[in-house]
Amino acid sequence: MISVVLLGAGNVATHLFKAFNKAIEVSVNQWYSRNLKPLESYKNLVNITDDLTKLQDADLYILAVSDDAVSDISSQLPFENRLVVHTSGSVSMYDIDKKHKRGVFYPLQTFSKDADVDFSQVPLCIEALNNKEDRPILKKLAKAIGSQPHKVNSDQRAALHVAAVFVNNFTNQIYRIAHEITESQGAEFDLLKPLIKETARKLDDLSPFMAQTGPAKRNDKKTLKKHIKALEDQHHKAIYELLTKSIQKTHGSLIRRVNNSNKNN
Amino acid sequence: MISVVLLGAGNVATHLFKAFNKAIEVSVNQWYSRNLKPLESYKNLVNITDDLTKLQDADLYILAVSDDAVSDISSQLPFENRLVVHTSGSVSMYDIDKKHKRGVFYPLQTFSKDADVDFSQVPLCIEALNNKEDRPILKKLAKAIGSQPHKVNSDQRAALHVAAVFVNNFTNQIYRIAHEITESQGAEFDLLKPLIKETARKLDDLSPFMAQTGPAKRNDKKTLKKHIKALEDQHHKAIYELLTKSIQKTHGSLIRRVNNSNKNN
Repeated sequence: MISVVLLGAGNVATHLFKAFNKAIEVSVNQWYSRNLKPLESYKNLVNITDDLTKLQDADLYILAVSDDAVSDISSQLPFENRLVVHTSGSVSMYDIDKKHKRGVFYPLQTFSKDADVDFSQVPLCIEALNNKEDRPILKKLAKAIGSQPHKVNSDQRAALHVAAVFVNNFTNQIYRIAHEITESQGAEFDLLKPLIKETARKLDDLSPFMAQTGPAKRNDKKTLKKHIKALEDQHHKAIYELLTKSIQKTHGSLIRRVNNSNKNN
Repeated sequence: MISVVLLGAGNVATHLFKAFNKAIEVSVNQWYSRNLKPLESYKNLVNITDDLTKLQDADLYILAVSDDAVSDISSQLPFENRLVVHTSGSVSMYDIDKKHKRGVFYPLQTFSKDADVDFSQVPLCIEALNNKEDRPILKKLAKAIGSQPHKVNSDQRAALHVAAVFVNNFTNQIYRIAHEITESQGAEFDLLKPLIKETARKLDDLSPFMAQTGPAKRNDKKTLKKHIKALEDQHHKAIYELLTKSIQKTHGSLIRRVNNSNKNN
């Protein structure tokens, strides 16, 4: 049995609480938030508090708080030499006050407020200053909620966090632009959804490099020109041009090779 | 029963042939390619030819050829007043020689050479010059292979084709960049796959506008700066900056509203 005190009241804290609460091998001893209101509906399930000085004993303390608050709250904790971890992708483990045993428990997924989270689909990036004693606790905790733990150091976690912004926020913005383009001609955005899913699914079989197709990779100038001309929004045009350039940079040697072999024919 | 003559030997032609061949209500009378070699392995299933003057009768002729070839081949066809359609997203219906009854049968999906295609996941955009007589044939053909037909005019199809480049090629390039970023720190790209799938899946519940989250939308300057600093490749930086600007343009009024309401508190 792993005992936990959870701190924070946002999406990550709430989804972690629900998962811990269901897990047989985890006991949430207490849930802290500066503001008790969001925790009220859970008070029959767990001891809740808004007073850091009244925190109970536990195997680990999880700071599921905003990035900016990690350092402050960790130094306000009225004890030392206990395992304290944060859940952030972009905050260093060393932002946690050095009086604690320090670690990170970063779930790499996008959480919606309302939808339930299936933690078997959430990789957990774990890091601990003390590999021998503390990392096994974090590993066990991840497994207890059905998640796959991965040992990830701070540099790797920072890279994953930036990369997550690309595949989540930027990809979603690309979807948004596709929505604007289809809407501008009264076409249905929904027709693109099977293609969107297949583009994501293809990564099960192929690397993104191998999966690439289309006019930019083929250097099909006629279609590229037609598309640029068709885009009415200057901002859409700029994104089209930059990402086309990016694809051609990635597949550049290939394009040169194809052009050369065409010349030789 | 709908009888078809198929022209072309690429991915789209091959996947269409396989689907037609399985469909009870479709008969492929003949398969034409300028070069017979790629069709050889199908010659026990269908009459194959490389001679346009020997094309047989059929209810419709499907030009699944490269964009540039549509106009030429259509005018070389040794008959007139029959239904001739192309399968391209970006070619106008009017590129087909006007001696024919003209139409479009555009499958909106990405096709891999080897993987089998499930046409229930392929929306078919159909267009016909003669709505009353010819469109029902195209609708019936789409349904016969398990696909959903959608009436889409040429402007809408052009918009869908550009939008498809965004959600397929550009999204895939975003995945590629995420791969480069994770690899540069020895982190596993595979950890991002559940997030990639969830980002696509979310569109079942929410528009891309509503689904957006992250530092650009929140205008979280600290994280944005940290990310820009962490990106070593100038090209990655340029894409990060442009797509961040794009998100802030889309959600701009929201950011201003949040800032104003913060000021008021």
